[in-house]
Amino acid sequence: MTARKDSDTLVLPNSLMGRLCAACSDEWSDYTGHAFVRGLGDGTLPEPAFRHYLAQDYLFLIHFARAYGLAVYKSNTLADMRAAAAAITGILEVEMALHVKYCAGWGLSEAAMAAVPEDPACMAYTRFVLERGMAGDILDLHTALSPCVVGYGVIGKALADDPATRRQGNPYLSWIEMYSGSDYRELVGAAVAQLDRLAVSRGGEARFVDLVQAFRAATVLESGFWQMGLNAAGR
Amino acid sequence: MTARKDSDTLVLPNSLMGRLCAACSDEWSDYTGHAFVRGLGDGTLPEPAFRHYLAQDYLFLIHFARAYGLAVYKSNTLADMRAAAAAITGILEVEMALHVKYCAGWGLSEAAMAAVPEDPACMAYTRFVLERGMAGDILDLHTALSPCVVGYGVIGKALADDPATRRQGNPYLSWIEMYSGSDYRELVGAAVAQLDRLAVSRGGEARFVDLVQAFRAATVLESGFWQMGLNAAGR
Amino acid sequence: MTARKDSDTLVLPNSLMGRLCAACSDEWSDYTGHAFVRGLGDGTLPEPAFRHYLAQDYLFLIHFARAYGLAVYKSNTLADMRAAAAAITGILEVEMALHVKYCAGWGLSEAAMAAVPEDPACMAYTRFVLERGMAGDILDLHTALSPCVVGYGVIGKALADDPATRRQGNPYLSWIEMYSGSDYRELVGAAVAQLDRLAVSRGGEARFVDLVQAFRAATVLESGFWQMGLNAAGR
Amino acid sequence: MTARKDSDTLVLPNSLMGRLCAACSDEWSDYTGHAFVRGLGDGTLPEPAFRHYLAQDYLFLIHFARAYGLAVYKSNTLADMRAAAAAITGILEVEMALHVKYCAGWGLSEAAMAAVPEDPACMAYTRFVLERGMAGDILDLHTALSPCVVGYGVIGKALADDPATRRQGNPYLSWIEMYSGSDYRELVGAAVAQLDRLAVSRGGEARFVDLVQAFRAATVLESGFWQMGLNAAGR
Repeated sequence: MTARKDSDTLVLPNSLMGRLCAACSDEWSDYTGHAFVRGLGDGTLPEPAFRHYLAQDYLFLIHFARAYGLAVYKSNTLADMRAAAAAITGILEVEMALHVKYCAGWGLSEAAMAAVPEDPACMAYTRFVLERGMAGDILDLHTALSPCVVGYGVIGKALADDPATRRQGNPYLSWIEMYSGSDYRELVGAAVAQLDRLAVSRGGEARFVDLVQAFRAATVLESGFWQMGLNAAGR
Repeated sequence: MTARKDSDTLVLPNSLMGRLCAACSDEWSDYTGHAFVRGLGDGTLPEPAFRHYLAQDYLFLIHFARAYGLAVYKSNTLADMRAAAAAITGILEVEMALHVKYCAGWGLSEAAMAAVPEDPACMAYTRFVLERGMAGDILDLHTALSPCVVGYGVIGKALADDPATRRQGNPYLSWIEMYSGSDYRELVGAAVAQLDRLAVSRGGEARFVDLVQAFRAATVLESGFWQMGLNAAGR
Repeated sequence: MTARKDSDTLVLPNSLMGRLCAACSDEWSDYTGHAFVRGLGDGTLPEPAFRHYLAQDYLFLIHFARAYGLAVYKSNTLADMRAAAAAITGILEVEMALHVKYCAGWGLSEAAMAAVPEDPACMAYTRFVLERGMAGDILDLHTALSPCVVGYGVIGKALADDPATRRQGNPYLSWIEMYSGSDYRELVGAAVAQLDRLAVSRGGEARFVDLVQAFRAATVLESGFWQMGLNAAGR
Repeated sequence: MTARKDSDTLVLPNSLMGRLCAACSDEWSDYTGHAFVRGLGDGTLPEPAFRHYLAQDYLFLIHFARAYGLAVYKSNTLADMRAAAAAITGILEVEMALHVKYCAGWGLSEAAMAAVPEDPACMAYTRFVLERGMAGDILDLHTALSPCVVGYGVIGKALADDPATRRQGNPYLSWIEMYSGSDYRELVGAAVAQLDRLAVSRGGEARFVDLVQAFRAATVLESGFWQMGLNAAGR
């Protein structure tokens, strides 16, 4: 009898996403189990680390929306176009407002975040995604986006499921709840399914080695995004 | 006392759009006063010409939405991103549904239109816009889009204002009403204003000669879109 | 005993190029056997048709070089980058000079050609290629380029092999000799082979339906390029 | 009497490049006077730092060539296309071979360098340049490239002119000689002049604030490239 990992219910092992994670298991573990993530779980993450992360995440969202603008442009079907359009609206009209509201609770105004210089770690990940997506096709683009979109769901769920996660007095509990909640879970499911559909229509099987390379790079750069937070707090 | 042309109230002569139209007055007149347009006004346009136009316009809308996806990607400000995102949603969720409903009235189903081969004239204009927008910047993109976005408003208003336009029994009256209506008029105003803002931020004054070249090509290709309809009806 | 078509020796039927041609046999025949092409063969093509073609071909070469610039950007291997770089240099430094020299013999100066407005048919094909290549990946790009690159070789060889082709006093003989010559033949072979390599690395098998769609559109637009010449001569 | 800085003879203060450097003087000083650079000058740079730099620079050259592929695609004039094409050939056929030969002297084979994972610092700078160039226009692209192209010349000249630079027994002397040599000096002059020409044709004056932002980000990421070398040596 084989034990089933919790994340398996979110990302089936034989999905493209599952196979990409398996092919980059070291980098994936580094990212999803990063010290920043553990600090969110036990509440020990220094607040300056989280604040730096939040401000950069605001800038990140702008480029994230641009990536879905690119996905609209790159789509081959109306269904893919509509999914990307919904993602843009979701980011620009919902996520951004939520983020701004959430950050206000941490003493960060939108004007302040918009004025912060973009951290090289934020530039590295966002520009990699946009550039990979432009140089390749829509499957390359969504592959480069997946460590973010799906990874946050995997991390959220792992923290929510972990008995060691501190709940009482953990200032990061609402973050964990957001990314383990049913809304985000649904979004992750849609992303995993879309990746599988694109793999069929765009010859993903034959391109697996290239896709792994892009996925690995994106995952490493996402770890860099966590590390950026710790660095800002002098960790 | 100088006579004021009707279109002046929609496109002020000293706006970038007004200056582009003036710089390409021959091509602009050919486009806005095309035989296809006159046939809409007096109701003499052969129905096969209009049906071919409608089916191609369905395919056009897909690439039009892609162009605004590109605009999201190319934007330098959140305001421009949000405007482009609203345009995508408007096209994919509202315009397309209206178009499909309208075409049903002309006996064209969505499935039928999606199966029609794209006419070279449709390819020529849409790919020119997308390619110019990609090779240049957001100002080049919106300049290439403007003969369509603004031109339809100018044409709609001219037909609506023209006493010679036939109203009773004109099968194309609803088309004229749509593009002369206040909703579309507002959209045109926003496009003209955005072009002026982009001209300031992206050095439009110094680039005027290049912008004229792109605008002229786009206008000629839009005339080709009208001609495509006539050709389909053997005119 | 099976008859072997002449073009089979240039494009093997089981190569990706061979399969694309077979999937679009009507459009491919229209293009490679176009009245313009037949007029080159028997020398009856009106000279104004050829002159218009030559001037547009000058403008075409510029966008053709841009397409290989895009190919350098889109390449995943150093070998592909170097092949694309060699193509750019070949176009800008060799082909263009040859073309200018050749056109001088037809009374067309480089300055005159650079001043000619680009014909919609030239815009349609070139922008389609560039846009398809940008929206898709390097395989989409080379697929969209292939009706031009390979097609000219197929046409050149067919004319050279055809006993009906007029040699004595045919003003277009040097054109036929150029595209049936061993230099161009070698270039065609390299393009066919590269397409097969890219099909392997980029999942071409699974994407065949999409590739056919792009190939068909590009082929139709290439026919439009021939037709443009005839139209200019009032045919 | 005003003192004239040495770098002034390479980059005139009133050129666009000179004004960009002045607008980002802190970031420019950090980059051109980085500890890595000082270590090259006095020969104290740890060899592992240089070796890591060399291997990443090999990967950098690939993306650098891609950026000039993009420049061919983005050019509005044949002269700009030819300059970009010459840059690609220079990088892929000359620089790369020189780099491989040079690295062999440091015990690094081409195969070894091609197999090294790309450092996030290398990804950050190269993808930023490519993405900025794609989202913006040819002026944005060359602005993002200039801290590299021109900066290396400024650094080379500063080290060559500095009496404190160690010559006897400095393992990095040939690096200094390459970037202070007349060949590279000429290339820098051409890049500075091209930037000024593009500023005229693409409205650079009106876009100065945006250009500064891109230039600053690129300069910071170039400092990151030096720091990457030191980090690899544990500095």
